[in-house]
Amino acid sequence: MKKSIIVGQSGGPTAVINGSLYGIVSEGLRHPEQIDHVYGMINGIEGFLSGHFMDIGALSATNELELIRTTPGSYLGSCRYKLPEDLNDPIYTRLFQKLKELNIGYFFYIGGNDSMDTVSKLSRFAGKTSCDIRFIGVPKTIDNDLVNTDHTPGFGSAAKYVATVVREIVTDANVYDNKQSVTIVEIMGRHAGWLAAASILARRFEGDNPVLVYLPETAFNQEAFIEKVKECLKTTPNLVICISEGINDGKGTFICEYSSSVSTDNFGHKMLTGSGKYLENLVKEKIGVKVRSIELNVCQRCSCAHLSRVDLDESVNAGVYAVLASLSGETGKMVTFVRNKSVPYELSYNTADVNIICNKEKTVPQEWIIKDGSDISDAFINYVQPLTQGYVELPTKNGIPLFAYRR
Amino acid sequence: MKKSIIVGQSGGPTAVINGSLYGIVSEGLRHPEQIDHVYGMINGIEGFLSGHFMDIGALSATNELELIRTTPGSYLGSCRYKLPEDLNDPIYTRLFQKLKELNIGYFFYIGGNDSMDTVSKLSRFAGKTSCDIRFIGVPKTIDNDLVNTDHTPGFGSAAKYVATVVREIVTDANVYDNKQSVTIVEIMGRHAGWLAAASILARRFEGDNPVLVYLPETAFNQEAFIEKVKECLKTTPNLVICISEGINDGKGTFICEYSSSVSTDNFGHKMLTGSGKYLENLVKEKIGVKVRSIELNVCQRCSCAHLSRVDLDESVNAGVYAVLASLSGETGKMVTFVRNKSVPYELSYNTADVNIICNKEKTVPQEWIIKDGSDISDAFINYVQPLTQGYVELPTKNGIPLFAYRR
Repeated sequence: MKKSIIVGQSGGPTAVINGSLYGIVSEGLRHPEQIDHVYGMINGIEGFLSGHFMDIGALSATNELELIRTTPGSYLGSCRYKLPEDLNDPIYTRLFQKLKELNIGYFFYIGGNDSMDTVSKLSRFAGKTSCDIRFIGVPKTIDNDLVNTDHTPGFGSAAKYVATVVREIVTDANVYDNKQSVTIVEIMGRHAGWLAAASILARRFEGDNPVLVYLPETAFNQEAFIEKVKECLKTTPNLVICISEGINDGKGTFICEYSSSVSTDNFGHKMLTGSGKYLENLVKEKIGVKVRSIELNVCQRCSCAHLSRVDLDESVNAGVYAVLASLSGETGKMVTFVRNKSVPYELSYNTADVNIICNKEKTVPQEWIIKDGSDISDAFINYVQPLTQGYVELPTKNGIPLFAYRR
Repeated sequence: MKKSIIVGQSGGPTAVINGSLYGIVSEGLRHPEQIDHVYGMINGIEGFLSGHFMDIGALSATNELELIRTTPGSYLGSCRYKLPEDLNDPIYTRLFQKLKELNIGYFFYIGGNDSMDTVSKLSRFAGKTSCDIRFIGVPKTIDNDLVNTDHTPGFGSAAKYVATVVREIVTDANVYDNKQSVTIVEIMGRHAGWLAAASILARRFEGDNPVLVYLPETAFNQEAFIEKVKECLKTTPNLVICISEGINDGKGTFICEYSSSVSTDNFGHKMLTGSGKYLENLVKEKIGVKVRSIELNVCQRCSCAHLSRVDLDESVNAGVYAVLASLSGETGKMVTFVRNKSVPYELSYNTADVNIICNKEKTVPQEWIIKDGSDISDAFINYVQPLTQGYVELPTKNGIPLFAYRR
């Protein structure tokens, strides 16, 4: 008996999360003898529980599905919803009832470690109740912090975005003949510094900007930082420094939290200043040079400006592989990336038990962090560079990139 | 007798200011019977006064000149330096002495209205002293605020950048199924709102985001703004609003200044909050919905991500035209753009007296600002759209755009 597919997206968006959606939908449609409909949950499991879904397979009749492939953000909408730990909670029975009504045989969830928690719980509930729906997770996160996979879809394009923008900021910092200036760039990453580390791809030669790069993986010492900045200004008058938003003192306090008690808005509310802004004020106070901080905004996760062809292709392939794995009987798994070699770059796809992946975080290895936590080794460059390669041509209309969107 | 060229860049950088530099250098080299060397001032007139210049024409022997064409930022470096009003100031004699030592016959300065002030003063001093050096200004500014020209080089690419990024931010804002949310995007523009106005290119249909757009050209009323936001949230639950950084109350006070008295950093310094941040706090206080503000950073003026082919070509042509105008005997002029028609778009080049251009600002016409200052008319779209067209392929290395830079 033919069964249907349902797919959802969860967590923060990336530039290529819709690539995986495209892969699942298009591969699903290639097996009409086994697959009936391809449905999409609107706003993830939370929206589906409220009855929101669509027949996304029907889009293949239009140009919309092709457009989805290169559209950043989550086409189906997202949610941040954690299913109850207790599998006896009535919500599970209700959810599986809905899945049965739609004759679902294959359930795909595209997301990060929280989303893998959803896949884990649903597959365990299915096992407990002898339900034959198959559950497969498809990784996505710009944070690159999932375990048991070489890297995650979304990271390559975000890394390329960060490296390019930092190179542009370095160009901008060199425009004026300042005696000395400091530019601090704050990059996303609360607990893992993968994305901030990618900023060193902007460096063109030894000693080039960004000269200093700080990650959450090592304890940040404010005095040592100021000494390092003073020293670097001697050889690099327009100094550019990249930091993860999550840099911390190693004792559980984020650097940005050092400032939160002093700043209030017009209405007396406490205003959270970012780590970049805090360090800007620190440099101004301790060194007295011209200083600015730049917080890279949401475009890190949703910009189509610097899509990596490798990243987009791998995201699509991850979706395709998920469908093939589920058709061959797998469930309770996440699609993983296995790097065969870096030069020339060669990747293969596999699956791993989702239960050992969910709710874990992979950080940047200590051996890749050098110079007292202020720089990144060449081994990291060899790791990240292949993931940022290749150009993606975007459809445009009137000069502006054209995106798919749900009406 | 053969004479030499000297060219400088001044004011803030743009994505295509080096296009004009490329145009001047390459056209200069095409006239070896009249032109000896092509020199570049390092950090504008200020650096030149300190003896900093280079033989930029010599770069044509390498790939560097071609690379300069697509490199954002000011290759020669910039300055913000105002020559004395008094033409009897000894600095003028000193400067002209230096120009004579280099056998300069043609002087080009690429910049905005402050830079045109420099061209005006130097050409007036030359007239007064019967010096035959010819002075030509080449316009550049993302602000698009120069008079006597249809638009300025640099504006088209910045407009395309803003429109694309706002469309990405709109995509990001729609990811979560928020009951209601407000996103405020702050765009460069202190006195003229051209760039913020370009954000409506992101709108795909009537009522689409950005629903509200505010410019410095109309007085900003905080109460009316809050009422408008409440009303718009009824039909657009995830509301995106674009504002110029320079929105003001019409009585000489910037909206961002309403907040400056309350916020202090860790060291007790007054912290200037942007207009976007101020409105974020206002919406939070008065309406209580989820709200965030995003300040578009320096990438507005230095990003190569969304170069407009039309803008880059026109920037190069402006440089070429400047050389040809000076060779034909013109001086004390700025290159201007004359739009023959919009559909199909057709432009011609001309020159105008630099004295009537410098130190003036062109703002967005009142008739293009509609709905009590909260929206922009279709007439503006017809004006701006041709300037954002076409794609520029960038040279890359290891997946990251390759930029020229002075060693």
